[in-house]
Amino acid sequence: MDDRLGVAVIGYAFMGKAHSNAWRNVGAFHPRVPGIRQEVLVGRDPAQVAAAATRYGWSRTATDWRAVIEDDAVDIVDICVPGHLHAEIAIAALGAGKHVLVEKPLANTIAEAEAMVAAAEDASRHGVRAMVGFNYRRVPALAMARDLIAAGRLGTVRQLRVSYLQDWLVDAAAPMTWRMRKEAAGSGALGDLGSHAVDQVRYLLGADVASASGLLETFVGERTGTDGPEAVTVDDAAWATLRTTTGAVASIEVSRMATGQKNALAIEVYGSLGSLRFSLESLNELHVCLDGNPGFTRVLATEAHHPYVEAWWPPGHVLGWDSTFTNQVADFLGTIAAGTEPSPSFADGLAVQRVLAAIEQSAARSGSPVSLEDPS
Amino acid sequence: MDDRLGVAVIGYAFMGKAHSNAWRNVGAFHPRVPGIRQEVLVGRDPAQVAAAATRYGWSRTATDWRAVIEDDAVDIVDICVPGHLHAEIAIAALGAGKHVLVEKPLANTIAEAEAMVAAAEDASRHGVRAMVGFNYRRVPALAMARDLIAAGRLGTVRQLRVSYLQDWLVDAAAPMTWRMRKEAAGSGALGDLGSHAVDQVRYLLGADVASASGLLETFVGERTGTDGPEAVTVDDAAWATLRTTTGAVASIEVSRMATGQKNALAIEVYGSLGSLRFSLESLNELHVCLDGNPGFTRVLATEAHHPYVEAWWPPGHVLGWDSTFTNQVADFLGTIAAGTEPSPSFADGLAVQRVLAAIEQSAARSGSPVSLEDPS
Amino acid sequence: MDDRLGVAVIGYAFMGKAHSNAWRNVGAFHPRVPGIRQEVLVGRDPAQVAAAATRYGWSRTATDWRAVIEDDAVDIVDICVPGHLHAEIAIAALGAGKHVLVEKPLANTIAEAEAMVAAAEDASRHGVRAMVGFNYRRVPALAMARDLIAAGRLGTVRQLRVSYLQDWLVDAAAPMTWRMRKEAAGSGALGDLGSHAVDQVRYLLGADVASASGLLETFVGERTGTDGPEAVTVDDAAWATLRTTTGAVASIEVSRMATGQKNALAIEVYGSLGSLRFSLESLNELHVCLDGNPGFTRVLATEAHHPYVEAWWPPGHVLGWDSTFTNQVADFLGTIAAGTEPSPSFADGLAVQRVLAAIEQSAARSGSPVSLEDPS
Amino acid sequence: MDDRLGVAVIGYAFMGKAHSNAWRNVGAFHPRVPGIRQEVLVGRDPAQVAAAATRYGWSRTATDWRAVIEDDAVDIVDICVPGHLHAEIAIAALGAGKHVLVEKPLANTIAEAEAMVAAAEDASRHGVRAMVGFNYRRVPALAMARDLIAAGRLGTVRQLRVSYLQDWLVDAAAPMTWRMRKEAAGSGALGDLGSHAVDQVRYLLGADVASASGLLETFVGERTGTDGPEAVTVDDAAWATLRTTTGAVASIEVSRMATGQKNALAIEVYGSLGSLRFSLESLNELHVCLDGNPGFTRVLATEAHHPYVEAWWPPGHVLGWDSTFTNQVADFLGTIAAGTEPSPSFADGLAVQRVLAAIEQSAARSGSPVSLEDPS
Repeated sequence: MDDRLGVAVIGYAFMGKAHSNAWRNVGAFHPRVPGIRQEVLVGRDPAQVAAAATRYGWSRTATDWRAVIEDDAVDIVDICVPGHLHAEIAIAALGAGKHVLVEKPLANTIAEAEAMVAAAEDASRHGVRAMVGFNYRRVPALAMARDLIAAGRLGTVRQLRVSYLQDWLVDAAAPMTWRMRKEAAGSGALGDLGSHAVDQVRYLLGADVASASGLLETFVGERTGTDGPEAVTVDDAAWATLRTTTGAVASIEVSRMATGQKNALAIEVYGSLGSLRFSLESLNELHVCLDGNPGFTRVLATEAHHPYVEAWWPPGHVLGWDSTFTNQVADFLGTIAAGTEPSPSFADGLAVQRVLAAIEQSAARSGSPVSLEDPS
Repeated sequence: MDDRLGVAVIGYAFMGKAHSNAWRNVGAFHPRVPGIRQEVLVGRDPAQVAAAATRYGWSRTATDWRAVIEDDAVDIVDICVPGHLHAEIAIAALGAGKHVLVEKPLANTIAEAEAMVAAAEDASRHGVRAMVGFNYRRVPALAMARDLIAAGRLGTVRQLRVSYLQDWLVDAAAPMTWRMRKEAAGSGALGDLGSHAVDQVRYLLGADVASASGLLETFVGERTGTDGPEAVTVDDAAWATLRTTTGAVASIEVSRMATGQKNALAIEVYGSLGSLRFSLESLNELHVCLDGNPGFTRVLATEAHHPYVEAWWPPGHVLGWDSTFTNQVADFLGTIAAGTEPSPSFADGLAVQRVLAAIEQSAARSGSPVSLEDPS
Repeated sequence: MDDRLGVAVIGYAFMGKAHSNAWRNVGAFHPRVPGIRQEVLVGRDPAQVAAAATRYGWSRTATDWRAVIEDDAVDIVDICVPGHLHAEIAIAALGAGKHVLVEKPLANTIAEAEAMVAAAEDASRHGVRAMVGFNYRRVPALAMARDLIAAGRLGTVRQLRVSYLQDWLVDAAAPMTWRMRKEAAGSGALGDLGSHAVDQVRYLLGADVASASGLLETFVGERTGTDGPEAVTVDDAAWATLRTTTGAVASIEVSRMATGQKNALAIEVYGSLGSLRFSLESLNELHVCLDGNPGFTRVLATEAHHPYVEAWWPPGHVLGWDSTFTNQVADFLGTIAAGTEPSPSFADGLAVQRVLAAIEQSAARSGSPVSLEDPS
Repeated sequence: MDDRLGVAVIGYAFMGKAHSNAWRNVGAFHPRVPGIRQEVLVGRDPAQVAAAATRYGWSRTATDWRAVIEDDAVDIVDICVPGHLHAEIAIAALGAGKHVLVEKPLANTIAEAEAMVAAAEDASRHGVRAMVGFNYRRVPALAMARDLIAAGRLGTVRQLRVSYLQDWLVDAAAPMTWRMRKEAAGSGALGDLGSHAVDQVRYLLGADVASASGLLETFVGERTGTDGPEAVTVDDAAWATLRTTTGAVASIEVSRMATGQKNALAIEVYGSLGSLRFSLESLNELHVCLDGNPGFTRVLATEAHHPYVEAWWPPGHVLGWDSTFTNQVADFLGTIAAGTEPSPSFADGLAVQRVLAAIEQSAARSGSPVSLEDPS
């Protein structure tokens, strides 16, 4: 056993792969954070988890997460399983004294999320850290955006426009899956894409959402499942207007039906002194209009002084989507080393879910705004 | 007197200049429509209207519009004065048997607009034409967009995103003007910019708006006028979601506070088979995703076969904003020659205003949707 | 007869139409220059010139340019006929005391151009003005570029990249025309497109070309004419490197075979303190990297303080290609009123042709550079 | 010892880091190629190489490359040291029966490169593989470009435009380094950036360069070193026109003085049936004009069917610059497993250097073209 922190990742599908990639690479690009060991990859199917562990660099595998969270060789538990399992594993792992990173969304219900927040607060008193994984906070260009806003370079922020458009459900003949069933998925585009949108509003402004109005739409109401036609019970697209506690208005639009858009998270922020624009499909770029300049300047956020970039590559050598997870675990390790609170906290994850719930509630009330200021 | 149609333009400010430019140039770029004479420019200040007439190519000037509409040398009356004067002049001119083009908005009140629609319907029975000037319908790229949608190339249109962003009120120290007083301007960004947005939704889809939800915001509530601080009584920005009779959802966002945006009307249309994007600051371009293509193709709408382009310039020789007015009067002249109804009609202008009114009404009711299906 | 300057345009094809448009509109957008009368349009075919005159706003027509240049009602002769006719008409018109604007290229041969320069110098001593029409000098964004360079904002300019790409000859089955015969057209892409490229290098830097290396290529060596296959005797594409008297290096690339490019004049200028980029297909935009900014700022050159824009339209209301000719005649009228020398002068037109000739000469010598410093 | 291939990387600076990253990650994104062990990292400074090995995932370190190439645990030697050391190490490693990957340029002299080619040919007869690392061949968008050209989708390629612009030497006060001394660096922008440009021309067309004309320029002729002012003996920028054996013309422009450009490798290819454009700063995008489409379509090369992408991330989740190295070693491992010749071979590396040498030779002869068809 060495002095590196032992990491367990639970889950080896898409997010398990992305998180594994982060743990495998964090040391190369973030030399100042504590070293880690890729201790154990956890999954239910022994053969599949073994194959994944080999590919993704894990020393060993396990099928029982309960044993893993009790394992002395494990210091950090990183939860990449479906949302309905988050609460149980996270609360148990925190109770066992393990630092916990949980992929977004924090949980599938507000009640679970609240229990997780309580567990995280309790664990924090013992120096145990908990973080939720909104990886786009770790895009260098967006971290730079946040820094500019926090430093007052945009003045008072008045308007934000956030859209997240994909097109994988455009075809009405695309088959039914669990993602289109409310009982399994919770919601559709709103939860999947809208959660990132809402988190960015809170992150960029450092402010809470005070009220929300929403509209949900299911354009293709029925799809063919294995047992024939079945009703789609989640939204294909969602719209919302949010008012923040600082008085800004944010418009949100998310869709899985936007033909030609693959992974288009687009953000615009307009303030009294400046503005900025971002697109996830060109994630190394931030377009800023500052200091009275007459237009937007394209900044390639690949300079050593940009957030997270110092130990990556020279200027102009662009980063990929996966780098955001690497930066995320670096931040998490940094807070463990420093004994500080990670961000976004479980409370941040809960706050995002409350906003999503308010949007749904508003949509059910024909768009009447729902207040979030005094949640009960 | 020759066989050309005599034109009178009433008003010589910004819109009078743009319309004059159109009449001066229509013959050069639209040789098949009837010839016109720039007969008379009308304005209240004799010296100023004379100077404008010289600059803009008018044969003579007048200060009394009532005399002009009775003038036998005048066949067409083009109204470019403020909105509260539209109804009186248009109704009188139509009554005098003159074809009427009126700059948008059709009128400042629904009641006036309804009276104008009635007058236009009456005049139509006598072969007299009436049109409202939503010039962006005559951007070749947008006319091409409409043709693609009408031909079914986008399949069922599900989502539209329309934003119109400007930044001329960003500075809280910018002084109070009549444009920020409700009694004079009617509304703020909503009427000025939102009217174009709503008209495009109706135009592109060839469908009516069935219901509307809205939100209005005044970010700078007080500005300094000549007599000291004064309340701003119109919106600085507005948001709406519209549902069309065909089931599409359109999101609208307009603002005068979008730092760095000068005249940014941006339109996106997503259908079941294709999609398209447009930006007014690059008005010669249409970006289309059609026929299963994997991304958006930039089309420079400057080929002879594109709408309106045939007699302009060779491919790649871009048109300016002013060309939209030239194309607009060409269309108007074409309907006069053909004896057909011009589009957008006064009824279209009224429909837009009803949508704007519904947005305001919804905003006053905290965003509850307002139905437009059975207007009374 | 009034105190306005009488204008005669000779030629009514593409350039005659563009120049007519300029004369028809100059008063509307440039109120401070002398007023003009569209006196006479000149062409060989009486019926066609009459039809064009009606469309383009001319008071009368003529078929004999010799009579027109003697006409007391004519103060300005604007020559839009093919290049081999330029010298004779221009020299005669200057001799008759008329101000002369001649469309580029100045002439088809160096000898003719030299004679024209001599005639212009002689005329200048009598207050008669001569200008050659490189209209892209009047794109506001390019005039702004020149001003930035002249003011030292880019520091020492080291590199320029100028390409002008079109695609109308891509198809090898496109038929033979006079434009592909050396005896008629002089050269191919080099003269047609390269002349604009070379003029921009000289204009932007305010410096002469000291030496040139060139390469010409004809990709489709034979095309079908009315009498069967025929050799193409001009270039389809050309490349050059120019060295200016200030030590900068400019690369030039022009082509009629660049599939997908319609009218793509692209310019990049790199200096020790800043840089800029421009594309004719987006002619209202200049992208500048100045003052140590980390990237390029997109500037929409539509503000009142930008060159030529003051009396056009409000910010964000973009200009078209045709506006460059309007601005060009405004400049010409301004020099007539002020009694100053217009720019580009005939000497500038000659200088461009000498550079083009040097490129051809170099190409014939396998690319060895040809000096222009001591032309004989 | 397991059945995985043991890898040694020699060098741990910029390229050693990039190559280490590739070996650490290849298994995760290319599951079908042979497994590897990160056996040993080699460097001269024991402490520094140990620190790098820990960061980059190597099992052990060594300071003597001669021992490493004899080590039975090592199957692959990956050379990331300066160019003047390539020949000796590569030839020795191949002689020892190790597969060799060498970072570009292949060597600093033609003679060394020729010896390496001979050694590679000899090794190939024993099933030992040798490859040179032009990583941009492994950008998915560029591999897609090559496939389109090879499939005839562009028809006959006529023109290529390749520029590679950076700005790190713009400031004349930037100090002297070994990179600006010819004896150490061989050449300046030409070798560093031009080698990628030339390799892309050969790669995309699958054709050789037949002749080359060149121009080199040093804009800042003297810089301050540790011992005072010193002459810069390499080029700051270079220009070339290449003619391929297939008759295409490629223009090349490379610079370290292009203010505002960070790592801007831009490629355009124009053929008789189609064309395409690429920019390294947006390396996930390929813009194609095919099948008679009227403009360029932006394709995000992140679909599973795009080259290299299958096992990376879902559509729209962009790859970074570092992925090119991962794909590169996957290709290399694939050829080792399949017993086929890797590409680009050492002969390809030599061919690029001959083109660079021809450009230099041409530049020394005032740009006269140098033939490469019968190199002696």
